[in-house]
Amino acid sequence: MNKLLRAHADQIIASAIHAVMPDEAVARALGGKAFPGRVLLVSAGKAGWQMAKAASDCLGDRIDAGVVVTKYGHVMGAIANFECYEAGHPVPDENSFRGTQAALNLVSDLQPEDTVLFLLSGGGSALFEKPLVPGEVLQDITKQLLACGADIVEINTIRKRLSAVKGGRFAQLCAPAQVFSVVLSDILGDPLDMIASGPAYPDASTCEQALAIAEKYALRLDAAARELLKKETPKALYNVETQITGSVRELCFWAAEAAQKLGYEPVMLTDQLCCQAKEAGSFLSSVLKTHAGSKKNLAFLAGGETVVYLMGKGKGGRNQELALSAAIGIEGNAQMAVFSVGSDGTDGPTDAAGGYTDGDTARELREKGIDVYKVLQDNDAYNALKEVGGLIFTGPTGTNVNDVALALFRAEE
Amino acid sequence: MNKLLRAHADQIIASAIHAVMPDEAVARALGGKAFPGRVLLVSAGKAGWQMAKAASDCLGDRIDAGVVVTKYGHVMGAIANFECYEAGHPVPDENSFRGTQAALNLVSDLQPEDTVLFLLSGGGSALFEKPLVPGEVLQDITKQLLACGADIVEINTIRKRLSAVKGGRFAQLCAPAQVFSVVLSDILGDPLDMIASGPAYPDASTCEQALAIAEKYALRLDAAARELLKKETPKALYNVETQITGSVRELCFWAAEAAQKLGYEPVMLTDQLCCQAKEAGSFLSSVLKTHAGSKKNLAFLAGGETVVYLMGKGKGGRNQELALSAAIGIEGNAQMAVFSVGSDGTDGPTDAAGGYTDGDTARELREKGIDVYKVLQDNDAYNALKEVGGLIFTGPTGTNVNDVALALFRAEE
Repeated sequence: MNKLLRAHADQIIASAIHAVMPDEAVARALGGKAFPGRVLLVSAGKAGWQMAKAASDCLGDRIDAGVVVTKYGHVMGAIANFECYEAGHPVPDENSFRGTQAALNLVSDLQPEDTVLFLLSGGGSALFEKPLVPGEVLQDITKQLLACGADIVEINTIRKRLSAVKGGRFAQLCAPAQVFSVVLSDILGDPLDMIASGPAYPDASTCEQALAIAEKYALRLDAAARELLKKETPKALYNVETQITGSVRELCFWAAEAAQKLGYEPVMLTDQLCCQAKEAGSFLSSVLKTHAGSKKNLAFLAGGETVVYLMGKGKGGRNQELALSAAIGIEGNAQMAVFSVGSDGTDGPTDAAGGYTDGDTARELREKGIDVYKVLQDNDAYNALKEVGGLIFTGPTGTNVNDVALALFRAEE
Repeated sequence: MNKLLRAHADQIIASAIHAVMPDEAVARALGGKAFPGRVLLVSAGKAGWQMAKAASDCLGDRIDAGVVVTKYGHVMGAIANFECYEAGHPVPDENSFRGTQAALNLVSDLQPEDTVLFLLSGGGSALFEKPLVPGEVLQDITKQLLACGADIVEINTIRKRLSAVKGGRFAQLCAPAQVFSVVLSDILGDPLDMIASGPAYPDASTCEQALAIAEKYALRLDAAARELLKKETPKALYNVETQITGSVRELCFWAAEAAQKLGYEPVMLTDQLCCQAKEAGSFLSSVLKTHAGSKKNLAFLAGGETVVYLMGKGKGGRNQELALSAAIGIEGNAQMAVFSVGSDGTDGPTDAAGGYTDGDTARELREKGIDVYKVLQDNDAYNALKEVGGLIFTGPTGTNVNDVALALFRAEE
C-alpha cells in the first residue's frame, strides 16, 4: 500500500464528512447573516433536531421561538425556547400534524421585517404536513395513485394540492415575513421541489396537470378533493431565500478543497453519479491512466450514489466495490489511488464506510491468493479489502448526503 | 432532436475519423521530417499497404526501396519501387516469412546516416515474422502455452525469444542505421511492446522470466528452443525513434480539436475506457448534468472500447448502447447530447457506426411507445435509435482505432 496516498485519502474523507455534518452545514449557512426583525425557527426532517441545535448555538437568543418536528427517537434534549415534536415517518401521524400546526401558529401574524428561519432535511415530507382533506381520504388517494402505477412526479402533483404546506404554500403562509430556508439535501441534483415536497419552493406543476392525472388514472375523488386540485400552488415566491447545504455537492466541494490543500488539482467530474459501482470504478481507473503523464498531482471527484446488483453472497457495499474494481485498472501504477466512502459511515450492511485501493492492491490480493474478479462476482469486497488494509472506517456519522469517490494521481517528484 | 447538436456531432465524427485514417496519420507523422542518408521502407500489418502508399505519396523518390507485408487481399496496386507481399493472418505462413526476409535483406549493410522507415499496424505479429525454430516447433510450443492457460504476457515472453524480429530485434538488425518507426495503434494504452510484438521496441521481459514460465507450465522444448530462451532481447535501443499515430488517443485529440472549432471547451476524461457501454453512458450523462450551470460550451471526451453483456436478442452495438443509456440521464435537458462512434464505421453486427441521443430522445421514444429500459435489456438499441434518427452512419472507414464518445453541453445563449 502507498502509505502517503492512504493518509491523504483519510484526511480528505475526514474533512469532507466533517463539513457536511448538519451542525457544520447550518453554521456555515448562517455565518454572517443578519436579521432585522424577529426570528422564528421552524425545523422539520430527520436532522431537524441537530439543525435546530446548531442554529440555536449560532444565533442564541436572537431566535425568539422555535418549533422542531423530527422522527421518533431523534430529539436529543431540550433546546432553549424551542418546542420539539417527535412524529411518524415515513407515514405521517397525528404528531406530524400537531407539530406542523404549532409551526403554522408560530409564523402567523408576522411583520415584513421578521424572518422565518426554515430548516429542512430528509423525511420532511411526512413530518411536516397539514392535509386539507381528512387523513383517511388522503390515504385512499395515495393508495389509488400507487396502485395505478403513477410516477413520483404525478403523485407529488396531486399531493401538493391536498396539503396546506407543500408546494410553496408554507412560505406563502409566512408572508409578509421573509423566509430564510436552509435545506440539507439528500437527493441527487438537489431538486428543491422534491425535498420534503418543497414547502418553501415555487411549484412548477399546474392544476391542469393535476386534473389530467386524475382523469388519466380515473381517480375516485370526492367533491372537496376535486375542488382542491383546481387551486393553484404558488409559481413564484418573493419572500424566500434558499441555501442548500450539506448536499453531495458540498461533500464533493469540501473533498476537493481538502485535496487541494494536500497539493492536488481537483477535477470535478460529477456529483450525480448513479451507475453501477464497479463500472464507476473501472471508469475512474481509466481516467487516472489517461492522465498518468501529468506533471501535476490530480484529484478526480465523483459524488452520487452508485448501485450494486447482488449476484453473490459475500459482504460489501457500493463504495467498497467501486474501489476494488478500480484496483484492477490501476494495478502497477504506484502513484495512483481510488477510494470511495458513504457520508453516513455505513457502506452496505457492513461496519466500514467505504474502500481504498491503490496501484499495489491487486498484486497484494493476488499474493494472498485472492482473485479480484471472483470477489467482485461474489459481492465480497469487504473481506478482500480487509486482507490488505483497504477498508475505511469512520463510524456512523449522523448525516447522509450520499457518497463521494476520488481518484488520486501523484506526479513523480 | 436538437438539430444543431446533431450537426455538431456529425462534424466532429467526420473530422476525427478522417484524421486517424492510415494515410492521414502517416502523412502527419512524416510531415517536416528530413532524412540525411538513404531511406528504406518496411511496412507490416493490416494497414501496411495504405501506410506505405501514404509514405510514398509524401516522400516520393526520397525512399530508395521498400517492402510491404500485409494480409491477403489487402494490396491495392503497385507502389513505385516497393515490393508488396500478401501473407497469412492471424496465422503466419510461408509468405509472411518470405516478405519478412525480403525486409531483412533490405535493411542489411546500411550506414549510420541511413534510415529505416518502419511502418507498423495491427496484425503485424503474424505478418512480420522470422522464426528461429522450424514452423512446426513454433506451432507446437504455442499450442502448449494456450492449452496450459498461460496469459498473453507469458506467451509473448516465450515467443519473442523464438523470433529473429520480435522484441526489439528487428531494430537491432537495422543498426547502425536509424529506425523511424510509425505505429498505427489499435490497442488501448498503446503498449508498444505488444503491438506486433514490438519489433522496434525494447523488450522488458527477461530470460529469467522466460525460463520460469517454461518450468511453471512444464513446457516440452527441444534443446535448440531451450537455448533460445536463454538469449536476451534488447533492453535499450539507441537507434530508434517511435511515433504513435492513428491511435484512439489521436481519435480523441482530433475529436477535441473539432469540438473546439465549434466553440466547445474540450475536457479529456479518458482514452482508455473499458467499462460496460450502458454504464459509461450513465456516467457521461451524470457528468453533463453536473455541469449544467456552466457558462461555457463543454465537450467531454471518453475514448476506448466499452463492452456489452448480451442479455437480449436485439440488434445493436456498444456505441449505440452507450448513447441510448445516456438518453435516460439527460432527458429534458435541451442543450445536452451524447454520442459514440466506432472508428471502423461498424458498431456491433450493424450497418451503423454508432448512436446519437440528446435531451429530446427519451421523450421521443416514449411518444413512439418505446421503453428505453426494455430496449437496453433486449440489446436492441439499433431499432430504437432508428425510430428517432439517432443512428450514425459513416460506412466502413478502413481504419480501426477503437471508439470515441462525446458528451456535449451548450450553454444557453
